[in-house]
Amino acid sequence: MTPGPVPVPQKVLEILSEPMEHHRTPEFQAVLKRVLTKLPSVFGTSQPAFIHTSTGSGGLESALVNVLSPGDEVLSLITGKFGDRWAKMAEAYGAKVTRVVTEPGRAVTVEQVSAALQKNSNFKIVLCQACETSSAVLNPIKEIAAVTRKTQALLLVDGITALGAFPMPMDEWGIDCVVGGSQKAFMLPTGLSFISFSARAWERIETAKCPRFYFDIRKERKANQGGETLFSASVPMIKALEYVLSEIEKNGIESIQARVQKLAQATHLAGKELGLESFSKNPSPTVTALTVPDGIDGVKLRNEMENVHKVVIMGGQDELKGKIIRIGHMGAIENKDMLVTIQALGETLKRMKPETFTQDRIDRAVAACKKALG
Amino acid sequence: MTPGPVPVPQKVLEILSEPMEHHRTPEFQAVLKRVLTKLPSVFGTSQPAFIHTSTGSGGLESALVNVLSPGDEVLSLITGKFGDRWAKMAEAYGAKVTRVVTEPGRAVTVEQVSAALQKNSNFKIVLCQACETSSAVLNPIKEIAAVTRKTQALLLVDGITALGAFPMPMDEWGIDCVVGGSQKAFMLPTGLSFISFSARAWERIETAKCPRFYFDIRKERKANQGGETLFSASVPMIKALEYVLSEIEKNGIESIQARVQKLAQATHLAGKELGLESFSKNPSPTVTALTVPDGIDGVKLRNEMENVHKVVIMGGQDELKGKIIRIGHMGAIENKDMLVTIQALGETLKRMKPETFTQDRIDRAVAACKKALG
Repeated sequence: MTPGPVPVPQKVLEILSEPMEHHRTPEFQAVLKRVLTKLPSVFGTSQPAFIHTSTGSGGLESALVNVLSPGDEVLSLITGKFGDRWAKMAEAYGAKVTRVVTEPGRAVTVEQVSAALQKNSNFKIVLCQACETSSAVLNPIKEIAAVTRKTQALLLVDGITALGAFPMPMDEWGIDCVVGGSQKAFMLPTGLSFISFSARAWERIETAKCPRFYFDIRKERKANQGGETLFSASVPMIKALEYVLSEIEKNGIESIQARVQKLAQATHLAGKELGLESFSKNPSPTVTALTVPDGIDGVKLRNEMENVHKVVIMGGQDELKGKIIRIGHMGAIENKDMLVTIQALGETLKRMKPETFTQDRIDRAVAACKKALG
Repeated sequence: MTPGPVPVPQKVLEILSEPMEHHRTPEFQAVLKRVLTKLPSVFGTSQPAFIHTSTGSGGLESALVNVLSPGDEVLSLITGKFGDRWAKMAEAYGAKVTRVVTEPGRAVTVEQVSAALQKNSNFKIVLCQACETSSAVLNPIKEIAAVTRKTQALLLVDGITALGAFPMPMDEWGIDCVVGGSQKAFMLPTGLSFISFSARAWERIETAKCPRFYFDIRKERKANQGGETLFSASVPMIKALEYVLSEIEKNGIESIQARVQKLAQATHLAGKELGLESFSKNPSPTVTALTVPDGIDGVKLRNEMENVHKVVIMGGQDELKGKIIRIGHMGAIENKDMLVTIQALGETLKRMKPETFTQDRIDRAVAACKKALG
């Protein structure tokens, strides 16, 4: 029940265990072609989308190195650990980074972005997480895209805990690059990242001076146009991706997104009944961060849930360690998984602080969760 | 029967299909610790070895960006397509590359390397494929390492079609970096690369000026020391890697390498009986390239073997397209797979040129293969 890697459907596991095919066969080339045809629709773009063999962070590096030139001014919108890391990555590649850092649990506001862009007209790039996984914060990407589009700056969006799980139409909103990862809404293991660039970004790609090779999207595009991947391809993962994309097509992405929403709502309502507040003031539908109550050690809470109840949720990272717990809403999560999680959370809290977390509270939380799930 | 991705053992497929675990759990941390403890022995080094979520080419990029500074002079030993690509990668990162290119099918000689190093004492890095997969050439890495070690240059070795499959002890031979890939001797799908650096290389790492982040080995080392991977980890792949490393430990790497040798020998002997010469004058044990006889279209030969006999081998790439066929010797290849391959090759040749490829020839080839396999 973590924000990723998420539970993987049985059919995906079956595909991953099929005997190996080679990536330079006509059979695999046909799979690749179908995948590359379907993938852009998840981004909401008419531009091509690409697959890297890397984690999501590799995709974030691809986004940067393909449009950045050393010395470029970059506006980095930071709502947690992953925003901070992306800013450091930009600096490693020679960017001059200006940071807008929000109070923990708060989204960046469009006013903050407007003000920063007005103060300095030299920004070439704006970086933002759609969902900052570390704090479960949802940033107003649509509004940020609208103000960024009026400047020369390209908006690069970390959509790792977002792409596919809630609407973020790249072309319609005017986003210049979105990065996704296989282990989130795509319900696959870690190992692939996905990326697409706007037409405006493609102009920048041609002139960007950052050195690149493994993530060189011009080379990848050329290889894809020839029906191949630039380097070896993870055949089982791409076959599994084809299945997931077919399922998305068959069931409609809206139904998957509605499911994510419902799980988030059920978690919030159950948390409320337990007396646990949302840490995020602008909560994302993909992951919920609940503030650990006073007198409870969040690390111990998380460990007990895993050891006693076999329920894996995430804790806080870095300065949020022990202070929050995080429950993910993407992937093959069934109602019973959600109910077991709330039950386990309640019972663990009860063991740790029985005077506050009564059986009655737990029952109300589970009932609220059940009702929300319908 | 390709030089990689290679056939994957059934047990690996089973592990890949187990339900997902999270990469930040104590269980997975224990797996990672065991894997990182075992991995260096495959390299023959007392230095740590690292895992990137990338293809082998990502590992080659890691080797470069961690020791290179823009403007460095690099000696690139090129025995085929992959050597050429690595040289271009170095140039993309600002290296000043001098190329030693051998005649197709020929290994680089230690005399060529000595002469190049004597002519120019500014080389900071030497690049070489242990096995050049495109031409099945085996380069004399031990000798090249010995002459390189006398200079300031670091020897970086592309061991993607080598590491684990034949002896190449990094410390003993004085190699400064070896890169491996999961889809070769490690018998896993594509998706992980492996890398290790010598103590001498680590000094260079500290001062190298190439920008890097995703492949920054200093960050990865720090994360590993804390029991974690720098970025998300592909849990199923690393669990499968643990299995493969245990099997190597249990059976002895020598027995795996003897098997690779035996398959190579069986292929050469069968090829001889069929009248197909080895394209490589310095053949690698990991892959055999056979020259396609006059009057036969190698592309058609390969396709017919796949379509009629369901045997997948590789053809030549770029200027070798249609001129050679390549048969790999790594992975879970059984005697019957090898015999079926030779039979299919013989029958396909017979259909294409019956006056030359008689049934008698085919029978002799299969018998030679059988005898060699024992």
